[in-house]
Amino acid sequence: MTQHGTQQPPSTESTAPAPAAIERHRADGLLAFCEAALGAAGADADTAAAASRAMLHGSRFGVDSHGVRLLDHYVTVIAGGRVKGAPDLRFHQGAAAVATLDADHGHGARAAYAAMDLAMEKASLYGIGAVAIRNSSHFGAAGAYALEAAENGFIGLAFCNSDSFVRLHGGAERFHGTNPIAMGVPVRDEDPWLLDMATSAIPYNRVLLYRSLGQALPPEVASDAVGHDTTDPHAVDMLAPLGAAFGFKGAALAGVVEVFSAVLAGARLSFDIAPMGGPDFATPRNVGAFVMALKPGAFVTEMEFDVAMKRYRDTLRASCPAPGDMVMAPGDREWTVAAQRQMEGIPIDPATAEAFDRIATRFALPRPRPVS
Amino acid sequence: MTQHGTQQPPSTESTAPAPAAIERHRADGLLAFCEAALGAAGADADTAAAASRAMLHGSRFGVDSHGVRLLDHYVTVIAGGRVKGAPDLRFHQGAAAVATLDADHGHGARAAYAAMDLAMEKASLYGIGAVAIRNSSHFGAAGAYALEAAENGFIGLAFCNSDSFVRLHGGAERFHGTNPIAMGVPVRDEDPWLLDMATSAIPYNRVLLYRSLGQALPPEVASDAVGHDTTDPHAVDMLAPLGAAFGFKGAALAGVVEVFSAVLAGARLSFDIAPMGGPDFATPRNVGAFVMALKPGAFVTEMEFDVAMKRYRDTLRASCPAPGDMVMAPGDREWTVAAQRQMEGIPIDPATAEAFDRIATRFALPRPRPVS
Repeated sequence: MTQHGTQQPPSTESTAPAPAAIERHRADGLLAFCEAALGAAGADADTAAAASRAMLHGSRFGVDSHGVRLLDHYVTVIAGGRVKGAPDLRFHQGAAAVATLDADHGHGARAAYAAMDLAMEKASLYGIGAVAIRNSSHFGAAGAYALEAAENGFIGLAFCNSDSFVRLHGGAERFHGTNPIAMGVPVRDEDPWLLDMATSAIPYNRVLLYRSLGQALPPEVASDAVGHDTTDPHAVDMLAPLGAAFGFKGAALAGVVEVFSAVLAGARLSFDIAPMGGPDFATPRNVGAFVMALKPGAFVTEMEFDVAMKRYRDTLRASCPAPGDMVMAPGDREWTVAAQRQMEGIPIDPATAEAFDRIATRFALPRPRPVS
Repeated sequence: MTQHGTQQPPSTESTAPAPAAIERHRADGLLAFCEAALGAAGADADTAAAASRAMLHGSRFGVDSHGVRLLDHYVTVIAGGRVKGAPDLRFHQGAAAVATLDADHGHGARAAYAAMDLAMEKASLYGIGAVAIRNSSHFGAAGAYALEAAENGFIGLAFCNSDSFVRLHGGAERFHGTNPIAMGVPVRDEDPWLLDMATSAIPYNRVLLYRSLGQALPPEVASDAVGHDTTDPHAVDMLAPLGAAFGFKGAALAGVVEVFSAVLAGARLSFDIAPMGGPDFATPRNVGAFVMALKPGAFVTEMEFDVAMKRYRDTLRASCPAPGDMVMAPGDREWTVAAQRQMEGIPIDPATAEAFDRIATRFALPRPRPVS
């Protein structure tokens, strides 16, 4: 969900660009609708606020797979009982600078924002703080929590595991989840540096995009049901780890995320997690996650950090591009999309628009109205 | 420097397998020779021990580019003055769980082992500990320090930056160093899980291997001087970031390493670091690094951690392989190589054997003798 050159399609980790006729909405209207719908489905105020905020992160930055498209799913899992609408979050503090959060099967965003709040508090006191999260659920875009830290002046990291969908290097069955790595770094008076990447070669919604466009996939990004590489998006049964011929690196990075999010948290391992898409929406899944915050001023002076970070990113942006190509820093694409959507509104795909209709009717809520 | 399937060459991050006629040495003989040579070149006892131990990590695990091949270089830089043989390491503790280490332009291994010692001490007290290192120098294989933590019961991470040799995604000039990510995780009663990977698509010594073999490189791993992809190993002027068409991920991971190792440490950014290979061997380079340790028992019970970590790796190793392929966990290949070299001895390439002759003569040291 990060920077890329121009040689590949424009939305690397997001869904297809919206056609001209699509609905566009203001962020505040979407936020209010999401909160009201989640509340009506059984979420307490903190859960509704956290889940809605995380969805708007996705919608704002162009990560539409993790945007308000998820509202329908979240309503289903809260109403169905898989996700507890009013969880009793419990922190276990085994040492001063770390904690484990038992999320009581609440919403992943509720848990992750609370965990990052505690990680930042610990980083303020000890220079670094980390919280492992168990008994959680889908938390949306990992970048939301990394950004939360960066906007508060901390370096923030966020990981999570998820149900198996990515094979190992040399493997022929689903093993890891798409296990994302997110990191945010504050840059004084500027937008943060922001990385949010799956450790799979591509995200699954990219496969769906190629499928709907009737195009062949790039080689070495996905496999069929027996583990053979395939470029046919209809034949895809699992994703490849990042790195193609060097996929042992992507698989190992997925392992880094798995160790932090599941092993260290006491959460379920990816291959033990029930599928996000059901059919069971009543049983908790015990997804894991991990967040960490570091206080730059505990290592160097804030001024040293600010000067170096700005110089690092400025120099990166000015690095000589290949002919016909361009270079971008992590997050640059997202900030550009956010500025554009701030002006033009957030595009809502037809399936999500139709879900809004259903949800509004079901809970007798005013359906959000597109901008003119 | 990690696991991989069988479809690619056998030594992903190491130099070519040794021909049959090559010298083989016992680890203890090499260690003693390295320590004596470094001491004769001006290293204090701690520096000689740390640098030798780090080199033997490389030689033991098959990462020969970071093995005793480096002795000649380390002698050159210590005798030349670039690396201070008797540094005065100074820790600045800006908060309880973190520190910054000014390595006083000493050897990178001396600094990194000392930093990991402090990180483990802090993790024992606070659950997590992190040390950023400035004014350091080449530290060899990052995995040495991650393994040090794992062998002491901690999850350990180690990063470092280095002089520019990897272009950005879409870029046409050297920007980041090969900026490795290493992580070690203890597995009770078994060898640790061990990741040590460059964030470049391939290591440079792999390019040299293809050059010496007269073979074409895989596509999308390296570029010529104007940033065009090349498969001609003789035309390579820079490496590509990990990920090929998704190289924005590899470039961003290099950025993660850069932020921790340089920005947060107050060390030089990769593009400001003088080339490792000289010609100036007198001026300190101010390379950066970063180490972190986490105590599993501060998050979950040690038994929960041990059971989950073993089950995770056992299940990974048993994951169904693609036809004709195999799956391995991070570190499995290294442990296999280490066991083999324990029996057969450590192979020494001809250039390194010749350097041993020169060093032995220069310092009037007994030259290590090959096994039978």
